[in-house]
Amino acid sequence: MPHIDLPSHLPGIAAAFAFRPETAKPMRDLAHILLFEPGANGSLSSRDRELIASYVSSRNNCFFCKTSHGAAAASHVGGSPELVASVCTDPATADVSDKLKALLIIAAHVQGDPKTVSPEHIAAARAEGATDLEVHDTVLIAAAFCMYNRYVDGLATLQPREPEMYEAMGKQLAEHGYRQPATH
Amino acid sequence: MPHIDLPSHLPGIAAAFAFRPETAKPMRDLAHILLFEPGANGSLSSRDRELIASYVSSRNNCFFCKTSHGAAAASHVGGSPELVASVCTDPATADVSDKLKALLIIAAHVQGDPKTVSPEHIAAARAEGATDLEVHDTVLIAAAFCMYNRYVDGLATLQPREPEMYEAMGKQLAEHGYRQPATH
Repeated sequence: MPHIDLPSHLPGIAAAFAFRPETAKPMRDLAHILLFEPGANGSLSSRDRELIASYVSSRNNCFFCKTSHGAAAASHVGGSPELVASVCTDPATADVSDKLKALLIIAAHVQGDPKTVSPEHIAAARAEGATDLEVHDTVLIAAAFCMYNRYVDGLATLQPREPEMYEAMGKQLAEHGYRQPATH
Repeated sequence: MPHIDLPSHLPGIAAAFAFRPETAKPMRDLAHILLFEPGANGSLSSRDRELIASYVSSRNNCFFCKTSHGAAAASHVGGSPELVASVCTDPATADVSDKLKALLIIAAHVQGDPKTVSPEHIAAARAEGATDLEVHDTVLIAAAFCMYNRYVDGLATLQPREPEMYEAMGKQLAEHGYRQPATH
């Protein structure tokens, strides 16, 4: 049962967004830019940005976000459910670039205690070719999902367990992004 | 030293916003709606919303956010540096309404582990007159400051220690809100 009177036909964050459309707009816009819009030169692919979002949501144990963004990451070129699972379980051994592995370490520190991101973590990412923009976006994706995850769980939104719903949602997010209200 | 090449004349989140104006816009818009815009019927005053932001930032130990939003809370009608300090130190004994005390307990749980917000916490806030919108905004302010705080500290932004700078910033935020770029 959600803690407040949310529309019962909408899952997770979609119900919270419908409750307060004024705050939903900037929250959708931020996700759209961070996860979906083509980045500037040298920025991360949408798949890799969704993997960071899934990883942080997994560390925050937010079922709705980790499953929906995991499905989005799996729907992008080069993604798969197995890849998402391996990134969330043990990024060090996942089949991703060494640059993304270094960025996932930064994301984990931002999720836990952002003051523990060290110059050595940044240097390790740079040594694998990470740009300032990629470091910035990694930090902000990790920070933003500490917001989205808390919004979803702090309101006790309904989080269905049907994999098909998340697969459809992930496909829609991967194809159309975050600006349009979800139709499910 | 910031972890990436941020404009050195801007403090805290202002430097991060200047680095990536695309993501700054929705982040500023969200803060403006959550903290500054007059709420709907029965919603919290700007002072109380800034107190929640200061309290959460204090719990996240984010010097820049707790000091700037503390100064904003102190600049609003009914605010003072002493009130901000007492809310951040021990909200149970602070000179605020019982409704705000109950909402601050919810905010603390969202900041720590959002799954620990219980029906009893919500019932206690309702018993003091809290509306669904006030509960929603409390949860989202707490969640959003878990993002802003991590963005500020995860990038190791410069956080000057001069109280005068924060007093000026707080006054500007209390009077004009969050949409305009800071001039300092």
